[in-house]
Amino acid sequence: MTELARAMASLAERLEGVLDRMLPHEDAPERGLVEAMRYATLDGGKRIRPFLVAQSAALFNVSENAALRTGAALEMVHCYSLVHDDLPAMDDDALRRGKPTVHKRYDEATAILAGDALLTRAFGILASDSTHSNPSVRCELVAELAKAAGHHGMVGGQMIDLTAEHTDFDIGAITRLQRLKTGRLIDFSCQAGAILGRAPVGAREALRGYTHDLGLAFQIADDLLDVEGDAKTVGKAVGKDAEKGKATFVSILGAEQARDQASRLASQAIAHLKPFAEKADLLRELAHFVVNRKH
Amino acid sequence: MTELARAMASLAERLEGVLDRMLPHEDAPERGLVEAMRYATLDGGKRIRPFLVAQSAALFNVSENAALRTGAALEMVHCYSLVHDDLPAMDDDALRRGKPTVHKRYDEATAILAGDALLTRAFGILASDSTHSNPSVRCELVAELAKAAGHHGMVGGQMIDLTAEHTDFDIGAITRLQRLKTGRLIDFSCQAGAILGRAPVGAREALRGYTHDLGLAFQIADDLLDVEGDAKTVGKAVGKDAEKGKATFVSILGAEQARDQASRLASQAIAHLKPFAEKADLLRELAHFVVNRKH
Repeated sequence: MTELARAMASLAERLEGVLDRMLPHEDAPERGLVEAMRYATLDGGKRIRPFLVAQSAALFNVSENAALRTGAALEMVHCYSLVHDDLPAMDDDALRRGKPTVHKRYDEATAILAGDALLTRAFGILASDSTHSNPSVRCELVAELAKAAGHHGMVGGQMIDLTAEHTDFDIGAITRLQRLKTGRLIDFSCQAGAILGRAPVGAREALRGYTHDLGLAFQIADDLLDVEGDAKTVGKAVGKDAEKGKATFVSILGAEQARDQASRLASQAIAHLKPFAEKADLLRELAHFVVNRKH
Repeated sequence: MTELARAMASLAERLEGVLDRMLPHEDAPERGLVEAMRYATLDGGKRIRPFLVAQSAALFNVSENAALRTGAALEMVHCYSLVHDDLPAMDDDALRRGKPTVHKRYDEATAILAGDALLTRAFGILASDSTHSNPSVRCELVAELAKAAGHHGMVGGQMIDLTAEHTDFDIGAITRLQRLKTGRLIDFSCQAGAILGRAPVGAREALRGYTHDLGLAFQIADDLLDVEGDAKTVGKAVGKDAEKGKATFVSILGAEQARDQASRLASQAIAHLKPFAEKADLLRELAHFVVNRKH
């Protein structure tokens, strides 16, 4: 096991405890809602975004408690977006992280409401003062997350993605789509660490450069997995993009050129981390991991 | 025109301008999303919740600008909840405020995403510092709205409501359902004014008493309209609860007793306003209006 794999697994385990505490437990009639929120969020995923929060926060000596809370809120937003994206009216997916999607396991109404409740809970966690953090810091986290996740960010990207099946996208349009759909939340992950640590502007810009390139590399790797992976390893249906005739990095660049581009982006991402010296070693390893992952 | 009607119309007009400025304008590929956000929010409704924010804020001499921004954010949350509630997987409504619902006018995917984006935007507005308000105040608004709108509030109530068609609810269960589904956001309306005005605990408690009773009175009036109103005046389909065999205040109490109960609640609501003397006159009138409205 590499140092990165150990660190990621360890973060994921601690995050699981935080998520468990921050998600509701319930016996009331709305139990189905709470169960679906927990089903959508717990026991799944590589937790890359919370890992980015934790690692970037550590650059500025932020307490792990604050980083984990912020990472948990961010993961709830990521999970809500998956629940809504998987709905029949959207991507219509039956499998996610190797398990039935929320609307398959429960029903569509529960999936819509569980997503809504996770998004709402995430903002509540960021704004509440359990860690006695500075209120300006908490406000900035809420405001930045709202920008990253809203109509000019993740949700805007998902909207464009829905039109991708019947639109002739070039590489510029695909890049913009993915910058919004997945890139903005990945940007926020490291900015969150910087906000918590009241990092200087230069450090924030360096991290923004890193996540910009990392996010695109991550997405190209995802497109490659959709073409080359098998559903069992990947944990979700594969080959869906090609089946739908959807434009992706791979459909436009071809697999080989896409792989080269992902490697180039990973190297570029790493170059941005120079100011942080060896404190950013795990972020560097992560850039390699992201383009070489098999799931 | 009564003084209340004038004040409500005037607030609604100023709110429209604020909403218009705070909602995005867009020419990008995600234009459909932005159009749907605007369609769902502008030019509709009595704007009762922003009116409650403005009136309660005025009790503590809060600037109208801050009250309107907060009211606009709250109205976005209310409108998002209507968009999602109207979806085929939920209440499956075709008509809202006399116009086609968002998924009828656009499509289901756009309606889901427009709701998500409105909820996200609302938190962003509350957290951002355009009014140079105190960060602790902004954090408290976000945290309180998240509680009121989330799994233990509005969304939890909607989840229970979905089971109401095939559950034998008594008056206690219906009361709890409506306290969550509509009551919590109405509570938040006046608490928001109090938070903005850094009101003392006693004043906050008085306002909580007022909105508690007002919210239930409002819901009973709504149930009566579903039984006795016509779709054209009410602006949405009527008779749906009875058709579905759904338990409501009216199905359990009967129309006459429900009407009496609504009046009693309005009087009780007004009694809570005593500490505010004549400054709360419009809030008193509103309690009468809510139980006597025809749409």
